[in-house]
Formats: sequence, structure tokens, C-alpha cells
Amino acid sequence: MITLTTDFGMSEYVGIMKGVILRINPNAEIIDITHNISPQNVREGAFVLYSALPYFPWGVHVGIVDPGVGSERRGIIIECKRAVLVGPDNGLLIPAAKRLGLEKVYMIERGEFTLEEISDTFHGRDIFAPVSAYLSKGIEPEQIGTEVSGFVDLDFGVPIENDREIKGRIIHIDRFGNVITNIPSEIMMKRFSFGDRMYAIIKGKECTLRLLRAYALGRKNELIATISSSKFLELSVVEGSAKDMLGVNIDDDVSLRFVFNQ
Amino acid sequence: MITLTTDFGMSEYVGIMKGVILRINPNAEIIDITHNISPQNVREGAFVLYSALPYFPWGVHVGIVDPGVGSERRGIIIECKRAVLVGPDNGLLIPAAKRLGLEKVYMIERGEFTLEEISDTFHGRDIFAPVSAYLSKGIEPEQIGTEVSGFVDLDFGVPIENDREIKGRIIHIDRFGNVITNIPSEIMMKRFSFGDRMYAIIKGKECTLRLLRAYALGRKNELIATISSSKFLELSVVEGSAKDMLGVNIDDDVSLRFVFNQ
Amino acid sequence: MITLTTDFGMSEYVGIMKGVILRINPNAEIIDITHNISPQNVREGAFVLYSALPYFPWGVHVGIVDPGVGSERRGIIIECKRAVLVGPDNGLLIPAAKRLGLEKVYMIERGEFTLEEISDTFHGRDIFAPVSAYLSKGIEPEQIGTEVSGFVDLDFGVPIENDREIKGRIIHIDRFGNVITNIPSEIMMKRFSFGDRMYAIIKGKECTLRLLRAYALGRKNELIATISSSKFLELSVVEGSAKDMLGVNIDDDVSLRFVFNQ
Repeated sequence: MITLTTDFGMSEYVGIMKGVILRINPNAEIIDITHNISPQNVREGAFVLYSALPYFPWGVHVGIVDPGVGSERRGIIIECKRAVLVGPDNGLLIPAAKRLGLEKVYMIERGEFTLEEISDTFHGRDIFAPVSAYLSKGIEPEQIGTEVSGFVDLDFGVPIENDREIKGRIIHIDRFGNVITNIPSEIMMKRFSFGDRMYAIIKGKECTLRLLRAYALGRKNELIATISSSKFLELSVVEGSAKDMLGVNIDDDVSLRFVFNQ
Repeated sequence: MITLTTDFGMSEYVGIMKGVILRINPNAEIIDITHNISPQNVREGAFVLYSALPYFPWGVHVGIVDPGVGSERRGIIIECKRAVLVGPDNGLLIPAAKRLGLEKVYMIERGEFTLEEISDTFHGRDIFAPVSAYLSKGIEPEQIGTEVSGFVDLDFGVPIENDREIKGRIIHIDRFGNVITNIPSEIMMKRFSFGDRMYAIIKGKECTLRLLRAYALGRKNELIATISSSKFLELSVVEGSAKDMLGVNIDDDVSLRFVFNQ
Repeated sequence: MITLTTDFGMSEYVGIMKGVILRINPNAEIIDITHNISPQNVREGAFVLYSALPYFPWGVHVGIVDPGVGSERRGIIIECKRAVLVGPDNGLLIPAAKRLGLEKVYMIERGEFTLEEISDTFHGRDIFAPVSAYLSKGIEPEQIGTEVSGFVDLDFGVPIENDREIKGRIIHIDRFGNVITNIPSEIMMKRFSFGDRMYAIIKGKECTLRLLRAYALGRKNELIATISSSKFLELSVVEGSAKDMLGVNIDDDVSLRFVFNQ
């Protein structure tokens, strides 16, 4: 099984990668995770891989969000306890790899396991697709690359906490306009309980909102806080779009403060 | 075979469901029908399932458009003559189930056939994906749930007819901007013939248009009426978008009247 | 293996075609290349098929961009050295077929290999899906249609060259806003070298830009020229969208002129 996660949209770039994979391994089962990562947003791609990959059985997972294609950035294979990951060495694969038990990182060498001709604009086709196909056929990472000790690291940023406030950042916005932050549920649930009311400052705008267990517990068009299915603080509008109501984008700041009973 | 029809967009939510399915049944063949149902539009989702499922061989069909996730609404399995359907008990599955020969409805019980931890925001992952995977492995619906006699019903609304008029409603708009109504072709063809000219009042706006057998018979940019591939009245603009020309949305009213020869 | 390339978006129209295919050949492996061709843009569809199909192993490739559905236009099967292509006779399949070694063209006859009832709006479901399914089961093209000598031809247009200028046209815009022209890399590389600076007149607007080997070699927000992965001149904005910066669309003209060193 090979999964694909990219910022290519459902474009022919994805189709072409599938063709390359199937020419090398006609038995590969190819699963699209998503191709709707915001263009070139490595952090969002990392978040999606981190959220999705733990639900898969063993497989080869290709992730491509690659503003540095054609530069000196390397391509890597990461061997994990529960998967093998393939993609650019720009941090994209790291949070997921750590969650799946990162063991070894290999730098991909151009050669017999890549296409003969390698473009400077489409390594998905020329390098990552063929490498993943060979890995799915049982070729070992050490045959394709060289083990390395260093790699580009990336995390979702650590929220800042003090007595009165938690400050985080938006790392993903889903199709419904739900806004997912980098504030983990543990931090939230240490301070708040479901039903609590809180102040939030979101993109400079103040508002109060309730922390609810489920969307369906809010009123229509109410802005609520909830815990996302990936276990981070999520801002939602019941039967609406928090993205539109708040006018926010990925990487915007979010700050939360408890409202004392008066 | 398991098909997926949701309002998730081609997002990682779909990818995660595939992972959950493949961990339980690595041999499942997963087919995306569409994930572009308008967010939380249960009726449109019902229409798409109704239109698409009859073309499939026997299989397990998962449908998710679920504004009530996390509330008291139940999850159901519907056994039909020609398929098994899985999804929320909000009417979404009913028109398709009736068309496929609805036989029995089961309420899904949380337990060994769902994920251990069930979130309040993503039952697709936690309940419907695992249940569909077990069904595709041959587990019987009665092992997973309890047969019930009541369920939330839903239809596309019955058009109102009188001597002079047919009044219906828009239930779907496709990618080309074609506007599909809930007026069945039988009602249309009882009153009109291909080539006929008719008055329409669409979102308060009057216009005249011809009923044509095919888009290609109209003139460029002409608003026409036709019979959709799902056998309902469809409004189209030749080489253009009826949605844009008319400024309409799902659930808007459409009224038709015959133009007498003068 | 059956691939699908259409302008249907990820809609239920695609899902329905998959259902029809799987009822006829339950073992078919169906691969989506893309469904995001601009609605009814035959030339763009032809370009995508031309770019993608050479990367696939032998298979049946269905292409549908079909403004003439329901008119007299025919459906065809093209036998190539390395593939079989199925779709409307409107030129869509021709550039790809020539690249894959076009051998014979058959006109599809309605009958036992199409659905019983054929609509005038959805030949993807009624004709092309079932025909492709039978072809994937080993039915020969001559059983399904009649060999014909004429067919609708189409090319991407030949750029006009003179001493001072190359004039071409935009044939595709990808998800990142990269603008792909019909000027082949050979024509570019005969006149220019990587690093060269050139004048361009794009939709009446003059600008200068550099020809670079890779996006990553430009400055952030710089408009650059590069060679696309399909080997045509591409205009890109580093970490941005050339489509947005230039305000261009498919079929707009692009003219290039060398800037002499001063």
C-alpha cells in the first residue's frame, strides 16, 4: 500500500505519479489521503500527515509539499516502527514520523531507483513516486539511500502559557471552515471544562465563546471552541464557517483567557 | 467493495477513513463516489446517493453528511436487496435505500465494531468506517446493531402541480453549473414535449426557455431546460453556467408554465 | 487498469462511471488521473492526457471533455501501440494517441457494449464507461466499433517564430497558478539559456523575466520563465501564482523576445 498526501490538488500531477508507481509495481494499491494542502504550506502538510498516518496499516507514505524543489534540498526516506515515509527533507514528514516511531533517516540518491531524467520542477514524478514504488516491492531503504543523522526538523510550535492566557496559532482550516490550532487538548483540559466560557483574541478581535463537547450542542451560527478529532483546540461555527466569521488564515495567532464567574 | 460519499471535500478526513477501513479489512476495495456534497446539505447528499448507487454492483455504501454529529442522532445500517448502506440516521440514506429495496434498518451499537475511543466530531472515522469495514468482511448487520422499526425519513419534496403550473425546487447543482430540480421527468413529459417553449419563474425572475433533448441542440449561452441523467428537470446554459446566469442556490424555488402558441 | 480523465470535478458523475465499470468488470483497477480540466475545455484536456498517459503502463484510458454530448459527434476507440483510448471524437484524445503510437480508430456503435438506455447528456456513464470496462476484459475494439479513417484532429497550435520573437499561447494553468504555454522546450532552448533575461508580452502587458532551471532559484514573488515538467515554456511566480499576477487565462497569447545585453 502506498498513500499520497500532496498540495497538488486533484490534478494530473497526482495522476502522473500514480502512472509512474504502477509501471514499477503493478500490484501497488494507491490511496489518496488528500491533495488539498494549501499550496506550499509545509506546516499544514505536516499536520495532516501527523493526523492521518496513525490510522493506516503498515505502508509506504509519500508526502509532497515542496517549495524547495530543484534547489539543494534533499529527498529522504524515513524508516519508522509502523511505516516508511518518503518526501522532501524540509520537515514535512517529521511530526508524523516521530509519532510513528522514527528509527532511521536515509538521503535518497539519484540512480537506478529514480527516473532516468530528473526535472527541476517535479520530483514527485521523477524521484518520490518511483522510490515509493520500489519500497512497496520490498527494496530496502539502504539500497536506495545513505543513512544520515541530520534532517530538517519541524514542529507545530509550542503554545505559550501563563497564569491568565494560552497563546497558540492556527495550523489548519478544514473544508467546513473549522479552524484548528496548535493548542493540544491536554493544555486545554487542564484549564477548562466543557461548558466553560472563555475570552479569545483572534486576529486582534475579541470574542467570548463556549467550550463544547460537540458541534451539535451549540446554537446555530454560534462560535464555539471544541476539541478536534486530532485532539487540538478547534474553533467552529455551528452550521457555519469559523474561517469566514473570524476572517482568519493559517498561521494567524489565537489567544485564550478564562472568563471568571461574576 | 466499499463506496464513500461525503461532504468532506477531498480532505484528509476521507483519507483517514480509508486508513481505518484498510486496517480492518486490508482487501477492501474503496471507491470514492464524491466528497463534494455542499457542506451539511443532507438533502443534496441524499439526491447524490439516490442517483449514483443503482449503478454499482453489490457493495457496502457509506454516506456521511452529518450536521448532528455528537448529538443524540443514531448511526444506522440499512440492509437493501442490492446493497448495504451505512451512515447517520438523518434521512440521508433513505431515498437511495428505497430505490435499492429497503429491507431492514439496524441501529449501530458502540462496541467491538467501532473504534475504542469515539469522538464527538468525527463519527466517519470512529463509527462508520470501521462498521463498513466489518460489513465488507462478512459480519452481519445484526451482530453490529439492533433492528429498529423507526428511522428519520426524507424525500426530495413533491412538486406542486395545477392546470397552469408546476412548482418544484432546486436539489442539486453540478460542477458545470447545471441546476437539477426535484421535478421528475414523468411530470415534465406529461405536459411538455422536446422543442416546447415555456415560462419559468426562478428565484422571482421570469424567463422563457426551450425544453431540449441535449445541450448541443441549444445556442451558445442559451438557457435551456433538459432532462438530467438522473431523470429530473435540469436547467442549463449551453457552454455556460445556469447557476451563474440565474444566481440560484440549492433549495431555491422553480416554477414552470406552458407558453401557448399565439 | 482503466484511467479516467474528465472535466467532471470530483463529482458523483465520476462515481457513477466507476459503478458502471465495476458492474461489468469487478476486477478493474480504476485510476483517477484528474477530473479538474476546465469545464468543456477540450484543448486543455488534450494537453493533460498528452502529458500524463506516457507515464502509465498499458491500460485503457478514458478521456471525457465533451461539449458536444448529445449531438452527432461520435464516440471513438483509438488503438495505440502502448494503450487503448476511449472518448468523444472531438480531438481530445489525439495528441496523446499520436504520442503513444496511434494505430487504428474505431467508431463506437451503440449496442451490446453500451448501457441499454443512452441519455443525451451523460455518455460517460452510458457509453464510455461500459465500453472501457469491456475493453479491460479483453473484448477487442473491432467487436465494439467499426474502423474509420477520418477523425477530428487537434493540436496545441504551432508557435510563430521570427528573428526577434516567439509567439505562443497558454494551454494549461495548474493548481499553483503556473502558466503552461504551447512553446516547446526545444524552441526555447535554441534561443535562450538558463539565466537569460527576456521581454515578454503577456495579455498586452510587457514585462521582463529570467529563464531559470528551477523555481527555487528565483527570488520570492519573482515572475520567472522555466521549462515545465511536460517540456513546455512555463511562467511561474516564486512562492506565488503567475495566473494571479498576470491576470491570464487559458488561450491567452504569450510573446517572448530576447533582451540584448547593453
